[in-house]
Amino acid sequence: MSKIQPRTLSGFMELLPSRQAQFDRMAAILRETYSLYGFTALDTPLIEASEVLLAKGGGETEKQIYRFMKGDSDLALRFDLTVPLAKYVAMHYSDLSFPFRRFQIGKVYRGERAQRGRFREFYQADIDIIGDGKLAPSNDAEIPAIIYRAFTKLGLKRFQIRVNNRKILNGFYAMMGLTAQSGEIMRTVDKLEKIGPDKVRELLVEAGVTAQQAEEILSFIGISGSNQQVLAALESYRGRNEIFDAGLEELNLVVKHLDAFGVPDSHFAVDLTIARGLDYYTGTVYETTMLDHPEIGSICSGGRYDNLAEYYTDKQLPGVGISIGLTRLFFVLEDQGYLNDQLNTAPADALILPMTEDLGPAISLATQLREAGIRTQLYGEQKKFKQKMTYADKLGVPYVIFLGDDEISQGVAAVKDMRSGEQVKLSPDQAVAHIQAGLNELNQGKPIMDKGE
Amino acid sequence: MSKIQPRTLSGFMELLPSRQAQFDRMAAILRETYSLYGFTALDTPLIEASEVLLAKGGGETEKQIYRFMKGDSDLALRFDLTVPLAKYVAMHYSDLSFPFRRFQIGKVYRGERAQRGRFREFYQADIDIIGDGKLAPSNDAEIPAIIYRAFTKLGLKRFQIRVNNRKILNGFYAMMGLTAQSGEIMRTVDKLEKIGPDKVRELLVEAGVTAQQAEEILSFIGISGSNQQVLAALESYRGRNEIFDAGLEELNLVVKHLDAFGVPDSHFAVDLTIARGLDYYTGTVYETTMLDHPEIGSICSGGRYDNLAEYYTDKQLPGVGISIGLTRLFFVLEDQGYLNDQLNTAPADALILPMTEDLGPAISLATQLREAGIRTQLYGEQKKFKQKMTYADKLGVPYVIFLGDDEISQGVAAVKDMRSGEQVKLSPDQAVAHIQAGLNELNQGKPIMDKGE
Repeated sequence: MSKIQPRTLSGFMELLPSRQAQFDRMAAILRETYSLYGFTALDTPLIEASEVLLAKGGGETEKQIYRFMKGDSDLALRFDLTVPLAKYVAMHYSDLSFPFRRFQIGKVYRGERAQRGRFREFYQADIDIIGDGKLAPSNDAEIPAIIYRAFTKLGLKRFQIRVNNRKILNGFYAMMGLTAQSGEIMRTVDKLEKIGPDKVRELLVEAGVTAQQAEEILSFIGISGSNQQVLAALESYRGRNEIFDAGLEELNLVVKHLDAFGVPDSHFAVDLTIARGLDYYTGTVYETTMLDHPEIGSICSGGRYDNLAEYYTDKQLPGVGISIGLTRLFFVLEDQGYLNDQLNTAPADALILPMTEDLGPAISLATQLREAGIRTQLYGEQKKFKQKMTYADKLGVPYVIFLGDDEISQGVAAVKDMRSGEQVKLSPDQAVAHIQAGLNELNQGKPIMDKGE
Repeated sequence: MSKIQPRTLSGFMELLPSRQAQFDRMAAILRETYSLYGFTALDTPLIEASEVLLAKGGGETEKQIYRFMKGDSDLALRFDLTVPLAKYVAMHYSDLSFPFRRFQIGKVYRGERAQRGRFREFYQADIDIIGDGKLAPSNDAEIPAIIYRAFTKLGLKRFQIRVNNRKILNGFYAMMGLTAQSGEIMRTVDKLEKIGPDKVRELLVEAGVTAQQAEEILSFIGISGSNQQVLAALESYRGRNEIFDAGLEELNLVVKHLDAFGVPDSHFAVDLTIARGLDYYTGTVYETTMLDHPEIGSICSGGRYDNLAEYYTDKQLPGVGISIGLTRLFFVLEDQGYLNDQLNTAPADALILPMTEDLGPAISLATQLREAGIRTQLYGEQKKFKQKMTYADKLGVPYVIFLGDDEISQGVAAVKDMRSGEQVKLSPDQAVAHIQAGLNELNQGKPIMDKGE
């Protein structure tokens, strides 16, 4: 029979088992963390009617979208998790309770130009809190706590959550009489880290800002220091613009409660350079950077918006949310050597190698281990001993259990710890306890190993 | 602004939060169960090159497939998890260790005619064990244990795993000189439960089988009784055909170890009427039926096959596997009233209602509860007390915590158990212990409530 070459599409991540186990561990930690903060899981379809998905229309997104006809239906694959959320909330409005806190970890699709580290199918891990008409600023204050806990649980140490407030920026530009240009100014200023202050100044003047105004803008966004120092500097602008003052109140609230939320100062910075390119955001904005890899850009971003679902409903649905691009993050972590390869990624905790023809005793032992929650593989193949051990080594199983006639007649099993090489004869109950103790220690590890401190 | 009507495509399941929580609990139990047996998780792309996905070509499947062009690429959405597994194993052959045990729980796509209970996007939950050249029959014997544990953990009680072996059928037809017709005969016999013996007899004769042969076939597949009785009846055919004898050996092995694998006789039956329509299967075949709802058909099926990836590689890769159509199963369970609505499906275990303007103490308490693993929502909205309680009721949170000036000055919180209505003032440590004890009890429940015994 002529064969088809098996291949996976370029831009689609497909992992080998142990890498997949690391990825899944990361996703599980995000799920647990999001759940701890009272977010409920959603799972919306990957396919939506194009009319619904593209309600906002236009832009880069539409070019990248996977869109196709099936029969008479014009369909598209979701390109983010926000549009499906907007649809969901508008559609199920009367069945939901607000504030509505949901998380979703799912694949999205963008037909980007294929290049290293760019994916066409990738996971996003999003949380959003949606209010009905209003949403208290305390929700904004909680987001850094979630980011901090998520990355800390993953094992990352050297990262910083950077926060700003669009109202402060908008208010500041209003004070300067630059409201009309503020969108373009913010998009320009957003590039500061990439292109430097001189280039930003040049672009600002090109955009019709006077040289003096450009200087004031650069000086404003250059306000730096500790969080308290930045907030103090901002106080000097208070009273000149209502929007500015409202933004400063919100920012003060976020900073005020950091400690109660368990976020150390070391991992948080008020940063006036952050605007987030999207016009979508209207208040608090968040970015998260790896201190040793600023070139990667933000690994978790988001912010406050006024109107989640304006394309679907007249209801005013403000919200605040963040998104982690999990596939890209995983790629970067692997690429930069951050993945903890000491993690137990074997498919089983124990591999039972029966040494007798009758498999009965081995099966009973496997059943007992499984009852105790130990992931157990029973190896029933007719292979040489050496091949069996090679298999155990390759899988990386922590424990191998030998069960021969001697062991069976003595009511014991020979349990080998594959890391230490130590082998002991134990009763089934003892074997369970022995293996569980070892696993407790082994499973302490986090998926990310951040050598920095 | 003119609005787009938000809608979800017909044939796509989109659940409200508490239903989603039930679905996720079921998926988590399958994941845990599969893991207990040493299966590793895979996550392959939803999109593949059409050439790869349709390597086998032809048939019903191709008509249903979601296939489209993106630029120059002819792409398709996966319609099952078996073809992507075949691709994966052929492609990553040298990086894998065999037997390769994998599970995958993921969405697949089939453009079926939309009707109640039929889905175009649905989850399959598959396990497969793939051998390199050979695969021991003990693997076949383990599958019923996995099915039994999975459904029992889900809470289902009245179900039966039915097992047969295609070699027994093929051997029997060979004895009768009907090898050439055996495929068609088996497809006909497979309909026995639906259309009855008379119609089967009629179809067999139409297919060119003599009336006497049809009688013998019906008498053979009519062999019934306890597992031991059926096996004893099959013994009388032994020695007349090698294939038959090999199948009987395999079936004996499966039945022999049921007890050691922890599968009670009550939930298992050798059933010679089961052939599985697909020519794909070559040995042991499995079906699982709900005893009170046979009309639903099999809720978990699969079997042994000789050649997983023949379209991609010359390697002989035999395997054995099963699949649960999770979306359809969930639909049926909801439809038939099997879902346990006592399950804790609230997004949070505790909802903190601060009664003071300063949120600091409430935030600190929330942080402490979260550190202890209690899923906690902090309610920061400015609403009337009654509205807050209505919100708590709607979410179904098990515990509401009030924190006013009195409590704060006393260093306590007022914890209300929403089921009993009981309210107690507790220190933060006591509150953690109190809530954890209540949750331990509350989270005993299984997602399926099967009233039968």
